[in-house]
Amino acid sequence: MWKPNRQSNRPVYLQIADLLGEKIAQGEYPPGSKLPSERKLAEQYKVNRSTVVLAYSELRSQGVIETRPGSGTLVSPFRQRSVPPTPSWQAYADSGNFLPNLPLLRRVREALEHDPGLIDFASGKLSLELVPSDEINRIIAEYRYSPHEGPDLPQGYLPLRQALADFLARYRGIQTTPDSIMVTSGSQQSLHLITQCLLSPGDAIGVESPSFFRSLSMFQSAGLRLFRLPVDDQGICPDSLRTLHRKHRIKMLFINPNFQNPTGTLLSRERRKLLLETASELRLPVVEDDPLGLTGYNGEQAFPLKSEDTASGMLYTGSFSRIAAPGLHIGWIVAPKSILSRLADARRQMDLGFSIIPQHIAAEFMSSPAFVSHLELLRQRLLYKRNLTISALERELPGIVNFNKPEGGIYLWCKLPGEINESRLLEAALQRGIAFVPGGVYGAESGYLRLAYSRPPDQDIVPGITGLADAVRAELQK
Amino acid sequence: MWKPNRQSNRPVYLQIADLLGEKIAQGEYPPGSKLPSERKLAEQYKVNRSTVVLAYSELRSQGVIETRPGSGTLVSPFRQRSVPPTPSWQAYADSGNFLPNLPLLRRVREALEHDPGLIDFASGKLSLELVPSDEINRIIAEYRYSPHEGPDLPQGYLPLRQALADFLARYRGIQTTPDSIMVTSGSQQSLHLITQCLLSPGDAIGVESPSFFRSLSMFQSAGLRLFRLPVDDQGICPDSLRTLHRKHRIKMLFINPNFQNPTGTLLSRERRKLLLETASELRLPVVEDDPLGLTGYNGEQAFPLKSEDTASGMLYTGSFSRIAAPGLHIGWIVAPKSILSRLADARRQMDLGFSIIPQHIAAEFMSSPAFVSHLELLRQRLLYKRNLTISALERELPGIVNFNKPEGGIYLWCKLPGEINESRLLEAALQRGIAFVPGGVYGAESGYLRLAYSRPPDQDIVPGITGLADAVRAELQK
Repeated sequence: MWKPNRQSNRPVYLQIADLLGEKIAQGEYPPGSKLPSERKLAEQYKVNRSTVVLAYSELRSQGVIETRPGSGTLVSPFRQRSVPPTPSWQAYADSGNFLPNLPLLRRVREALEHDPGLIDFASGKLSLELVPSDEINRIIAEYRYSPHEGPDLPQGYLPLRQALADFLARYRGIQTTPDSIMVTSGSQQSLHLITQCLLSPGDAIGVESPSFFRSLSMFQSAGLRLFRLPVDDQGICPDSLRTLHRKHRIKMLFINPNFQNPTGTLLSRERRKLLLETASELRLPVVEDDPLGLTGYNGEQAFPLKSEDTASGMLYTGSFSRIAAPGLHIGWIVAPKSILSRLADARRQMDLGFSIIPQHIAAEFMSSPAFVSHLELLRQRLLYKRNLTISALERELPGIVNFNKPEGGIYLWCKLPGEINESRLLEAALQRGIAFVPGGVYGAESGYLRLAYSRPPDQDIVPGITGLADAVRAELQK
Repeated sequence: MWKPNRQSNRPVYLQIADLLGEKIAQGEYPPGSKLPSERKLAEQYKVNRSTVVLAYSELRSQGVIETRPGSGTLVSPFRQRSVPPTPSWQAYADSGNFLPNLPLLRRVREALEHDPGLIDFASGKLSLELVPSDEINRIIAEYRYSPHEGPDLPQGYLPLRQALADFLARYRGIQTTPDSIMVTSGSQQSLHLITQCLLSPGDAIGVESPSFFRSLSMFQSAGLRLFRLPVDDQGICPDSLRTLHRKHRIKMLFINPNFQNPTGTLLSRERRKLLLETASELRLPVVEDDPLGLTGYNGEQAFPLKSEDTASGMLYTGSFSRIAAPGLHIGWIVAPKSILSRLADARRQMDLGFSIIPQHIAAEFMSSPAFVSHLELLRQRLLYKRNLTISALERELPGIVNFNKPEGGIYLWCKLPGEINESRLLEAALQRGIAFVPGGVYGAESGYLRLAYSRPPDQDIVPGITGLADAVRAELQK
């Protein structure tokens, strides 16, 4: 990210004018295109808005840009007589099948990108000290790249699929073969493949409510109709599944039973059984996302429903990002072979897989003894972070905030009293240097917050909750 | 890939029956699903067909599978009474927005996957000795993974985008900034993003004819209507562009001007000028794919049209796969900033970028002095392979095969006399251990073959062409 040089003799506003002039000359902002608002640019470059006002005024006086009432600041269409006409790029940017992502989510992401100093209860990434970097570097040091390992691997690098089959049998109770596994660049790609290749626009699907699936504009972009099954402190309630299925002919059910995103709940034993039976009876395919199943705090691990799926009625997705190394970007899908062939064939139209290097590293790490000790440490450290977060909340907002204690995972689902203006609360928190995700993003009613406590370093958690509590109190007084 | 153990006491047919039984038990082939044909399985496991017949017979006698006239061999639907009903997976595999890939292409890929011993004039990959593995291993040896380098990079790792901006200015004559570049996992993903995010179903686009774009079912899957502009020995003829645009309102033009896939032609200077002028006048965005521009044999490099695009009217895509290291899976898109923001936002619904490790390696390699000498060597070696291929063809099929000599790149576009049964010629060549791609895949009339001479090691080229010539003669006599 560009920053003004405050030691320079050239005033900051002229530095900004130079930079923008250069971007315009290089076609980054073509003639007639809209420039960012003054406010946005000021935030981005961390300068006063008045500085941007001056920079724009300078460019206006050079004839490079113009400001039109109601349409903001534009690059002058006839900046140079010799410049030929440009396609109306904005019309293209507004086309296509993808809906824009949710505004509140985009706001959170933007804030995290522009201010790395924020205390981040939003992203759900691993705290830096929890990433097994030493072990990964040990594996890299021993790695030798060989061009023999071919590039086109839509189903993924075979040694990783073999390691995954072992991993799934050993840690997740799933018996499968490398042929039934596809490697993806993470859960997002797994779900994208499933929705794009196995469902058609207009199809109805069932999702938990609240649910992170609701936050994935991907589903709406694919033209799917989403129907909700409520989640309480025992997880998703399968009772209404039959009615939903009859009424809307839902074609697939998406669940996240282990330490659910965003509520942190673990689906109870009884409901698992009922859910499997009902789905099997309805011949309804269930997609289970299981990124956090290995993070149960109490020793007894949370197994996926897939481990009890005797009817081959489920697709299973998992990922390395929330439990080990987000930088490797490794996810996977387990599916019947007919489905995997279809996914692999369709994937050739999207990408041809990705580099084997991170796949090799993931395979080695999963099979190493270091993996077991890493998981053990991870659970202890997440439990510690959960406790820090909870006690800070109880101290700062006693009687104001409510939550259930998660027994694994990384999410604390908080309820504030009454109606809350979520966007205003988010801005108030961001102003205090704290990021979180408002519950509305997940389809919850007003007043919920998702705090992901895996990312902030321990020493930031108490100041983070203090700042958040301050924002909450300010908002509640309005 | 599983292979029978020929040293074992257990007969091979029972080994195969065991393997299939296990796969069925593990749900890889769910009850009611179809098993591969005997012929296919025999090919896959490299056994006689009669061995597979015996294996299937064994499983049939166990009641695990059944053969129904007209529908092949199926897993028995009521294999175990306790198994609950399974979703009708086949119906799901037939859904979704993705059309299956072209049968002839799938056939070639299958053959290459199952028989690594084939002499490969099909894939267009780099020959192993042309991959700069030593240099890549030197970079890996110096690399240290750091979790600071965040995971969510839909636009790509910044140091790589910086290296790409330098690379594009230095080698491709394109002035741009890291903000206007997106890193992708290769050209396929670049084109997928462009078609999915900037075009809508029903839109018309222009493509060269013949063209590898025609082989990408991706375009048809996106619901686009393809209109052709003919390619001759000077490259694409832009004359009909205006008529096409008026008649079909084409919204985007896709071109591959440098050593085109499949014809190997270089678009002439005059046509470049005319194409740019016409597109600009029509305000028609042009997407230029440029994977081979750096492989001109005669020292004078082929620059992309994008380097003359003063109107910001073009999108530009490139890749590392055909010129350096296919295993890194690195491609890029250059686009105006408004378009890139749109692509990055939409990409969050597909994947969240990919691992920084290959991105780091690519950035280092591109900026190293070794890159220059690698390119020099690559050009010399490709020219040598071209000459070997051409002289073998002239010796083996004099007066029968016609082609133009490509002055760069990796493709030789061959014409045989009269009508050819492409599928039969392909099978005849595969039987002789040779793979190529029939021209019909690229929308050419009957009788064309694409020979990509980059992949086979030098010593395989003459035997490969001899085998191919034998298949051609056999086919012409039919």
